[in-house]
Amino acid sequence: MKRRLLLVSNSTLHGGGYLDHCQQNISHFFGKDVKRVLFVPYALHDRDAYTKTARDKFQTLGGGNTFRLLKSLYDNKVVSEIRRRVLEDGVPYMGSSAGTNVSTISINTTNDMPIVYPPSFSAIGLVPFNINPHYLDPNPNSRHMGETREQRITQYHEEPDTPCVLGLREGSMLLVEGNKATLLGTTKARLFTRGKPSVEYDPGSDLSFLLTH
Amino acid sequence: MKRRLLLVSNSTLHGGGYLDHCQQNISHFFGKDVKRVLFVPYALHDRDAYTKTARDKFQTLGGGNTFRLLKSLYDNKVVSEIRRRVLEDGVPYMGSSAGTNVSTISINTTNDMPIVYPPSFSAIGLVPFNINPHYLDPNPNSRHMGETREQRITQYHEEPDTPCVLGLREGSMLLVEGNKATLLGTTKARLFTRGKPSVEYDPGSDLSFLLTH
Repeated sequence: MKRRLLLVSNSTLHGGGYLDHCQQNISHFFGKDVKRVLFVPYALHDRDAYTKTARDKFQTLGGGNTFRLLKSLYDNKVVSEIRRRVLEDGVPYMGSSAGTNVSTISINTTNDMPIVYPPSFSAIGLVPFNINPHYLDPNPNSRHMGETREQRITQYHEEPDTPCVLGLREGSMLLVEGNKATLLGTTKARLFTRGKPSVEYDPGSDLSFLLTH
Repeated sequence: MKRRLLLVSNSTLHGGGYLDHCQQNISHFFGKDVKRVLFVPYALHDRDAYTKTARDKFQTLGGGNTFRLLKSLYDNKVVSEIRRRVLEDGVPYMGSSAGTNVSTISINTTNDMPIVYPPSFSAIGLVPFNINPHYLDPNPNSRHMGETREQRITQYHEEPDTPCVLGLREGSMLLVEGNKATLLGTTKARLFTRGKPSVEYDPGSDLSFLLTH
């Protein structure tokens, strides 16, 4: 398994610029030999402006709206091709937010508004679990009565045969190299497993067990 | 058009009990002659417990997860039947949150997590626009970098031919009687129209123009 993935929770962290918080991780991930990256701008409406932002930062990304991104990947018939190139040919894949969601089994645990209808919620499937990017702890001072993030993921796990969900807080990311997965960044991650209590993991934790499910 | 709808933003308001904030509106809406209500418990996993909560309150409702609710309505082939009974026979319809979302053109503007895949995002279509329940203003003190609600609705309006979206804040509801629509409750609502600035409406406002689009 040649897979190499860098799955980032969020592209901007409070107080910093675009991708600043993971800049070193990205440089290290791609290394000095990479001359070209393929940027997939499908998740935002103005693709030229989005591509310019990414090019200016000399990075590849995948933020924006998850439904729009996945629908465009299907419309352009590149879901299987990306999977093949990453899993068989070892092309490195980096995503943040929406780009992280579409790299997993399905987009069932995105936070985005369903502004378009993709032909399936199944995604590229580079890892055998799901991720909830921008994972958010309940705010005890909030008067808003919408469901907490934990309640939403619990609702997902009421459905049959649903996979683990890794809640990646803003500032955290997952590095996958072959069959090894490591939590990086500055914040903890919370793992939700169907029918079990959730578990917190510190940055630096080895999460390789998630790849063998 | 015999339609009579009461579309509530949220079933619980901070500091109050289940449906307390709209109790009088519901009593007035159904009137004294209604002896039975059909409660649709599809939006939550434990349908018996959910039905008991609703029965205890002697109310009909539609909170929970919008995707689960709409998928079950399709699975049970009742979408067209509900539309016919409400629009042609004048059966009153009351929904809150998820139940409000599925009464509109589509669920494209729900806040819920897409935990199941419905056969379409098209919904019952009792009104010719969409609603965003639990509408939330940006919190200037938040350090969270997820999109604001307004940004999400703006992304929706980047798609072609998308209808108006009425942002119903918690505490507000829309009463529809035939071709007359009135904003009720204690909070303002914000109307988003594709390509135009958004507009605020006070409780008591006549929003009948939304029904003629």
